[in-house]
Amino acid sequence: MKSTASTLIHLAHMNPAIEVVDSLLRGVGQVMFQNNPIAGLLFLVGIFINSSEYGLSALLGLVVATLAAYLLGADRPLIRNGLFGFNGVLTGIALSVFLQWNWHLAVYIVLGAIVSTIVMVGLAKLLITWDIAPLTAPFVLTAWLLLFALYQFGQLHPTKLIGPMAVHPGAAIQTDLQEAAGDARAVGITAASLANALFRGFGEVFLQDNLWTGVVFAIAILVSSRVCFGFALLGSALGGLTALVLGGDGVTIYHGLYGFNAVLTAIALGGRPDGLACPRRFLVPNWWSTIYAFIGAIFSAIVFAAIAVALSPLGMPALTAPFVLTTWVFLVPTADFRALQRVSVAECASTKSLVALPTPKSTRAE
Amino acid sequence: MKSTASTLIHLAHMNPAIEVVDSLLRGVGQVMFQNNPIAGLLFLVGIFINSSEYGLSALLGLVVATLAAYLLGADRPLIRNGLFGFNGVLTGIALSVFLQWNWHLAVYIVLGAIVSTIVMVGLAKLLITWDIAPLTAPFVLTAWLLLFALYQFGQLHPTKLIGPMAVHPGAAIQTDLQEAAGDARAVGITAASLANALFRGFGEVFLQDNLWTGVVFAIAILVSSRVCFGFALLGSALGGLTALVLGGDGVTIYHGLYGFNAVLTAIALGGRPDGLACPRRFLVPNWWSTIYAFIGAIFSAIVFAAIAVALSPLGMPALTAPFVLTTWVFLVPTADFRALQRVSVAECASTKSLVALPTPKSTRAE
Amino acid sequence: MKSTASTLIHLAHMNPAIEVVDSLLRGVGQVMFQNNPIAGLLFLVGIFINSSEYGLSALLGLVVATLAAYLLGADRPLIRNGLFGFNGVLTGIALSVFLQWNWHLAVYIVLGAIVSTIVMVGLAKLLITWDIAPLTAPFVLTAWLLLFALYQFGQLHPTKLIGPMAVHPGAAIQTDLQEAAGDARAVGITAASLANALFRGFGEVFLQDNLWTGVVFAIAILVSSRVCFGFALLGSALGGLTALVLGGDGVTIYHGLYGFNAVLTAIALGGRPDGLACPRRFLVPNWWSTIYAFIGAIFSAIVFAAIAVALSPLGMPALTAPFVLTTWVFLVPTADFRALQRVSVAECASTKSLVALPTPKSTRAE
Repeated sequence: MKSTASTLIHLAHMNPAIEVVDSLLRGVGQVMFQNNPIAGLLFLVGIFINSSEYGLSALLGLVVATLAAYLLGADRPLIRNGLFGFNGVLTGIALSVFLQWNWHLAVYIVLGAIVSTIVMVGLAKLLITWDIAPLTAPFVLTAWLLLFALYQFGQLHPTKLIGPMAVHPGAAIQTDLQEAAGDARAVGITAASLANALFRGFGEVFLQDNLWTGVVFAIAILVSSRVCFGFALLGSALGGLTALVLGGDGVTIYHGLYGFNAVLTAIALGGRPDGLACPRRFLVPNWWSTIYAFIGAIFSAIVFAAIAVALSPLGMPALTAPFVLTTWVFLVPTADFRALQRVSVAECASTKSLVALPTPKSTRAE
Repeated sequence: MKSTASTLIHLAHMNPAIEVVDSLLRGVGQVMFQNNPIAGLLFLVGIFINSSEYGLSALLGLVVATLAAYLLGADRPLIRNGLFGFNGVLTGIALSVFLQWNWHLAVYIVLGAIVSTIVMVGLAKLLITWDIAPLTAPFVLTAWLLLFALYQFGQLHPTKLIGPMAVHPGAAIQTDLQEAAGDARAVGITAASLANALFRGFGEVFLQDNLWTGVVFAIAILVSSRVCFGFALLGSALGGLTALVLGGDGVTIYHGLYGFNAVLTAIALGGRPDGLACPRRFLVPNWWSTIYAFIGAIFSAIVFAAIAVALSPLGMPALTAPFVLTTWVFLVPTADFRALQRVSVAECASTKSLVALPTPKSTRAE
Repeated sequence: MKSTASTLIHLAHMNPAIEVVDSLLRGVGQVMFQNNPIAGLLFLVGIFINSSEYGLSALLGLVVATLAAYLLGADRPLIRNGLFGFNGVLTGIALSVFLQWNWHLAVYIVLGAIVSTIVMVGLAKLLITWDIAPLTAPFVLTAWLLLFALYQFGQLHPTKLIGPMAVHPGAAIQTDLQEAAGDARAVGITAASLANALFRGFGEVFLQDNLWTGVVFAIAILVSSRVCFGFALLGSALGGLTALVLGGDGVTIYHGLYGFNAVLTAIALGGRPDGLACPRRFLVPNWWSTIYAFIGAIFSAIVFAAIAVALSPLGMPALTAPFVLTTWVFLVPTADFRALQRVSVAECASTKSLVALPTPKSTRAE
């Protein structure tokens, strides 16, 4: 893989168009903390395997969010490392998953991508006060506002995934693992149902409810970082397991919805979120930080349930809010726990950047 | 107009009672960022044109909020420039619009006005960390808490404007512009219906659903600042237009409810919010800042829909929260966009004030 | 009482086990700002009087939260003064009050207690920016997330206290003071019903709906600080009175639910919150600070109603969020009110601690 990366780097130096493509692909990779164009490309492939509509929406969000950062004059190294792409990608996909396609939706995605970039810079400025990164909060905030509004606008048509529901204390929950309510194929805990839960947990990070997309995503992370892959896999497993133990809905677990926030939380707390802050982890790895990351992954699954309940009267999705909230809650105090060693975001800040970044690998290679 | 202002200034110097009245009128003007007693007086006239009950509630909130600031020993120049009046004015009106008049309501307004002053000083302290102003957030927070509580208190009687409603994904929306559902007079896009949408957008800033009140408000801004007037007018138009394009409810658009947050957002991002920070804009005007202000105005209309949906199960109003949220989101990152030039709140801070202010015009005249 | 305390201090020096017990008891005391093991012990006695199940849950939360702080390497003086115990105590009790007992609940309490400690350190770091303390916010945030999630998990069974309800603007409210709807014994304002409202207001701070528990709690505070006792008593009275005047539900008032947030707010603003910040008050006492504390207590009762309404579609409890919100709102601006004199949290900060603490009395005694 290294030789392919080196080839890309050489190409990027020779051709500005390829530099642009490289920046955009890093933007896709950053959704899972991978500042790596190959990972980004594989993520895109995975999305197109599931749906070309979602793939095109992802590309629209990616290009507009990055372009907005460029036109407004955001920090160049941050743009070059894809940090204005990932919220746009997710905003594009989310709007396309929860709204039916029409031209109004295209305009909506363009507006959402622009705002996601504005929120990204704003949140980075706010959060640097406490040495934490915005994560995917710009996507969550922007997409929530745009999705909530759909009930007021006749030109926006929700898909069947939007279903408001009142809560009932005594409602029975069907805990058997299965693809859909009343499904006969994979009822209960089988290799197939567990594999679905595990890998769809990767897929749902990009809102892709597809086993093979999840497998491609897992490979993409493995290509980029084995440490991240390990934490992501354990994260997905722990998220699903937490729901299984507490008696969560079997269809929800099967589709990886208890896994995706745990995947991201486990990478952020235990893995190696390269591009977002420094070429090191947020936390220096030791036994305590590993246990801490796993407790975070478990808690993120419960936070997913909590946010899903809070939004159920509106029928709105939790998106990656559980990951963002859990990771913030677990990262802020780390400097004051002697058992954990924090890598400061400021420590690796360049003189120019808000949330500093190493120069991209293409430059470092020289 | 200048000679009238000069006369007032002279009077203010000679008579402490007139200085008090001048401070109070500036408090009314600050609702639309106009640190100008004439604008404040015209706003009051506009409110009384619509309803003397709302006018008296506005005065009660204004006086109590300003008095509370005085008694607690808040910064004098801030009081003198009306910065403790505008949240009280809005709290008084909002409680009176959504609750039926009785003595309990009067006590409620007094308590709300006091708390709005406490929240104002607190939020100013919090937000100076990121160089932004509280805007009308103290009003929104205080009024929301007092209004939410009404369901628990038998002595507070909601008006018909409080109507909880469950959301329905497929609910048909009636998009024809009209005064009320089934109205025959102004159905569709006519000069009359557009004028109503445009000017009621001004009126609704003070929760006044009245065409002529809106016209008086527009004149008040024009008297105070032509730049503000231009941005306010375009803001109201863009807010309504956004809702029209996306298929918003025609009655809601007709009554200016998609306009009022856009009016405030456009003034804050593009206009000349004199008194609140410095005698200059938050942003130095150029083409990019103008486009930026218009995107903000458009987005504020969508945020209005989003917050209205989020509060619909409780039947609670969005108030000016969409303006506050949008303006914060768009102002925080500006220092990090090279295309935009931020005027720092701190830059014009006096040694004594939290959110600094120029000495009022009456003093500067000497 | 002093000799008993001195005896305990001597014992604590001689025996590490007693030092641990002393730290844990201070953790219970800190729920009501009492850095005092005797008060903590009396609070525990009060809880066990009402229910041994709640008492054991309180102990589980207390021990796990304190142990987590110890293992993660939090600041020792903070642990020694019980600042990692009080959120664990409340989390344990709240989960046990709103969920039926089973082994899943025990695991849930353990997880909640760990997270409450993580949130405590994180919030302390965030809030020191504005010189305020986390109060019981770590408990509120953690318990809300864990309770919201119960609707998604079949192994967690809510008690009858969880009852989702839609709001209705015109719903009649039964304002007669009484123990239960249709109760014949204590209808109306009698010595008995007022005593119940007053002392259950103390009890509900620990979610204990029991007159005699409330009396024991009141005695516990009196033993520790007469100033705190006075403010707590007036707080409880003002909270209930506010609801009575505004026409609140008589059963809710009778059970002290309008009192408990006012008790805590009155102590925090007017009393002597010893251990949490310094061996002095947050505010230097004078006539203005006393009036300010009383306005805060009154407002906290309205905020309780507001948060209860906001959470009613989910059937979730307000917990001590009204106290936290009101106290933050009233404390943040105090440095900018000349009529009030703030005691800075930083002023009494040791070089090592985030939220500094005096060395415990046992050490100071030497």
